[in-house]
Amino acid sequence: MRAAVVLLSGGLDSSALLRFVLRREACSPVYALSVRYGQKHDRELDCARRQAEIMAVREHRVLDLSGYGVLAGGASALTGSALPVPDLRDIADDEKDQPSTYVPNRNMILLSLAAAYAEANNCRRVYYGAQRQDRYGYWDCTAEFVARMNALLALNRRNPVELRAPFVDMRKSEVLKLGLELGLDPGQTWTCYRGDALPCGACPSCVERREAFRELGLDDPLGRSGPD
Amino acid sequence: MRAAVVLLSGGLDSSALLRFVLRREACSPVYALSVRYGQKHDRELDCARRQAEIMAVREHRVLDLSGYGVLAGGASALTGSALPVPDLRDIADDEKDQPSTYVPNRNMILLSLAAAYAEANNCRRVYYGAQRQDRYGYWDCTAEFVARMNALLALNRRNPVELRAPFVDMRKSEVLKLGLELGLDPGQTWTCYRGDALPCGACPSCVERREAFRELGLDDPLGRSGPD
Repeated sequence: MRAAVVLLSGGLDSSALLRFVLRREACSPVYALSVRYGQKHDRELDCARRQAEIMAVREHRVLDLSGYGVLAGGASALTGSALPVPDLRDIADDEKDQPSTYVPNRNMILLSLAAAYAEANNCRRVYYGAQRQDRYGYWDCTAEFVARMNALLALNRRNPVELRAPFVDMRKSEVLKLGLELGLDPGQTWTCYRGDALPCGACPSCVERREAFRELGLDDPLGRSGPD
Repeated sequence: MRAAVVLLSGGLDSSALLRFVLRREACSPVYALSVRYGQKHDRELDCARRQAEIMAVREHRVLDLSGYGVLAGGASALTGSALPVPDLRDIADDEKDQPSTYVPNRNMILLSLAAAYAEANNCRRVYYGAQRQDRYGYWDCTAEFVARMNALLALNRRNPVELRAPFVDMRKSEVLKLGLELGLDPGQTWTCYRGDALPCGACPSCVERREAFRELGLDDPLGRSGPD
């Protein structure tokens, strides 16, 4: 029995990951963790709930960390009301290594919480869905980040938790392909940073998702309101 | 101007640290962060508020992370209602390297939040009050833990934040002595894990505090309800 925690945003990558962890890694029991951190696109949490339900995980927790939006909110377009979510085409080249959609230290916070959840449930593994096609250069989605998180977590003598990011060297289209093979319905995942009724089609996250579908010659069942 | 964030629990060590950061490190402006994580002794947060007020920090935030108690609560005597806070004398020798008062991954979570708060306010430093006399062997209070946190945080290209733990090689009595030199009133700090009206005098945290006062030949102005 390999018990595991999956960090589940409700997006394409983490939803594919949840299936991967259950079916390919044969982990059991699996606990899923989602976090409400003040993201404008908190409808992704509905998708997280749906995915957890479909996959019948042992437990799914949605942690309320909405105070984080106040703490670091103004600094990110994903949580601050003052900063609008930019279209990808409006992000200047010299900002592309860390655009305004970067949320200060979000991944370390979420993964630290996931590691605590793992410890409390005797899980030795935490999975997270970072993937290589990290065109916006988030520093906290890289293999080196995972390696250094593990160097840190390894200091825990009693309950060392290992962080695994099996998609970190895969393109988003490869993650999508794998998810589809594992039965994922992308229509029940949410990617758009804006979080309106339909995906905007123009934010960095929408553009990346659209390209993944294009690379596979597929249509996204979610559709979109924005430009083609 | 060296802007900094101080992680402020309201205990003796972090309250001394706040003074150290302002007066010896000459940091300015200083932001203080406290977290309500479901601790039974949340009256320490009143002391944190008082310390922040006395020292006139630029901003003091108390982040609500009470969902963490649910996430990891049952695993720790500090947050779980099922587990009582033990007296130090009742902690078996083979548990002393990580007793039930250990809170799963708490420090990584708190420091990740502090680093986010620092990023959002253009601070390059986060200070935390870990000290050497870490007789209960918490893995997340050591110099090695600080070094590996820094190796991780250094990956952030745009806003690298450095974690500093200036007391990590000092005994608690030395921290107390320094705090007193800097004008700290220990009567306005809170240490007891139990969080009743008076310190219990018997939990690991109370015993450590009492010994620090004894080493300096001083009386603790807080008093206690428990044994001498």
